[in-house]
Amino acid sequence: MSITVVGSIAFDSVRTPFGERERMLGGTAMHFSLASSFFADVHIVGPVGDDWGEAEMATLARPGVHTHDVERVPGGETFFWRGHYDYDLNTAHTDDTRLGVFAEFEPKLSEDSRACEVLFLANIQPELQLGVREQCDRARFVALDSMNLWIDTARDVLLRVIETVDCVLLNDAELRMLTGEPNLIRAARTVIGWGPGSVVAKQGEYGATLITRHGFFSLPAYPLESVLDPTGAGDTFAGGFLGTIAAHGGLDEEVLRSAMAHGTTLASFNVEEFGTERVSRLRPAEIEARVHELGEMTRFSGLPLPVRG
Amino acid sequence: MSITVVGSIAFDSVRTPFGERERMLGGTAMHFSLASSFFADVHIVGPVGDDWGEAEMATLARPGVHTHDVERVPGGETFFWRGHYDYDLNTAHTDDTRLGVFAEFEPKLSEDSRACEVLFLANIQPELQLGVREQCDRARFVALDSMNLWIDTARDVLLRVIETVDCVLLNDAELRMLTGEPNLIRAARTVIGWGPGSVVAKQGEYGATLITRHGFFSLPAYPLESVLDPTGAGDTFAGGFLGTIAAHGGLDEEVLRSAMAHGTTLASFNVEEFGTERVSRLRPAEIEARVHELGEMTRFSGLPLPVRG
Repeated sequence: MSITVVGSIAFDSVRTPFGERERMLGGTAMHFSLASSFFADVHIVGPVGDDWGEAEMATLARPGVHTHDVERVPGGETFFWRGHYDYDLNTAHTDDTRLGVFAEFEPKLSEDSRACEVLFLANIQPELQLGVREQCDRARFVALDSMNLWIDTARDVLLRVIETVDCVLLNDAELRMLTGEPNLIRAARTVIGWGPGSVVAKQGEYGATLITRHGFFSLPAYPLESVLDPTGAGDTFAGGFLGTIAAHGGLDEEVLRSAMAHGTTLASFNVEEFGTERVSRLRPAEIEARVHELGEMTRFSGLPLPVRG
Repeated sequence: MSITVVGSIAFDSVRTPFGERERMLGGTAMHFSLASSFFADVHIVGPVGDDWGEAEMATLARPGVHTHDVERVPGGETFFWRGHYDYDLNTAHTDDTRLGVFAEFEPKLSEDSRACEVLFLANIQPELQLGVREQCDRARFVALDSMNLWIDTARDVLLRVIETVDCVLLNDAELRMLTGEPNLIRAARTVIGWGPGSVVAKQGEYGATLITRHGFFSLPAYPLESVLDPTGAGDTFAGGFLGTIAAHGGLDEEVLRSAMAHGTTLASFNVEEFGTERVSRLRPAEIEARVHELGEMTRFSGLPLPVRG
């Protein structure tokens, strides 16, 4: 199955307690594409400006990533984000956002992108997500990300998009905000009541939880002694998650669980270095080894144990 | 193996968004004893006052709980705690604490309590923990809990106790505070460097993580749509955890993992109702079923998946 992702392509300037970088390649669609391309072909849809040169395009166009729908806007400037993290790496502090060409972005999908079987609507305006969803009417599995801004300012449209997708990926706080339910399981059940068959709660250093109509699955984050930059972890997770679904072609509970393991693994590599540095040079054997390790780290045998009355 | 626990026996008055109770039976040693008695014999050491009557004693003295070292202090008042929780059930707000007989508590252990093979030093002054640790010199597995107050005011003594135990159970924030390490894995490794072979990070609604010299294991909390009162969850976890270790008699990685699963399970029952209400009427088959469910909720098969280079 092939994947299409619609989202941002950006330059990120990031400072954490462990270092800083200026104008790294970033953006939701960028992180997603890199991660998902380990498993399936991915079509990336998003705008860039004149400052996005051949070198940047070459980094993006790794094997499996189709860039014909990367829209070059003449005279425009690529989306730019500057932010920092303190020791609590779960919280990003935004210091500057310049939307640039992203401000006027209207996704234009080629026939190849529209023909995708798996679609990821990264965190952009719900109106744009809805338009893309309608164009990709043959997609068999559609997932969506969003954020507090859209829950606050465009809740009605966001709910209309959610009704049309198969999976909602949000962090815990967003799920609670969206549903008004402080209990995470009830929040997920509320979303499932709106249409999607599955909800993934992204929980940062605590991992991720998958709630489906009849199932529950939770995985810790891969334990790391050194986390340098969490930027893009959520989209990298989504890339591993949807990439796995595209590669398997099936949609049963086992595939979703395998997808969670691959999403968790890709995200763990992402945060080990700045921006896309680590994932860009990742090798298949490293992914396979870490997925196997995750399995070992969560397995317990029900040793026979007499419980007393 | 038999267990000894030293800690508080208390009356708790608790209010949460879901209800309130006055003067429930509580305290760290009380919650621990109830939970661990499903797996092994437990000797409870702690003081009570004149207000602790025959009815309270009868509730405590369930099968497997030995109460001969519950010290009745004539003229004294039992430890009392009043607190409340808002929708964030991870944070307890203390409204009143009356130490009563706990203020002058000096643990007096009978020969039976001293002869334990498993010892739990619940969250009390580190000086008292050290004294008890020295009395129980035949214990094969000793675990300790503590809190921010002692890390702040009695760090040196606390470190001396930690050097003598096999396992430290703390929540994430306490582990970071104790070690000055923002990264949880490094924080646990620091503690292990001081002597204990294992660290359990208690993570509330996110579950618990076990870090040993050469291993890592993490379990989510059992998913609940309704959590009424988290008071005592940590000590109930400890009861299931150490009870399992005592029942198995061995100390390998598989036993520790099974102990994590049973601790998680007991804690999940604890928070479903107020105080000890739910655990008091828990049946063995309910424990076994939930441990099995936890195994199902965390298992994933490494479906064969070609990762592309």
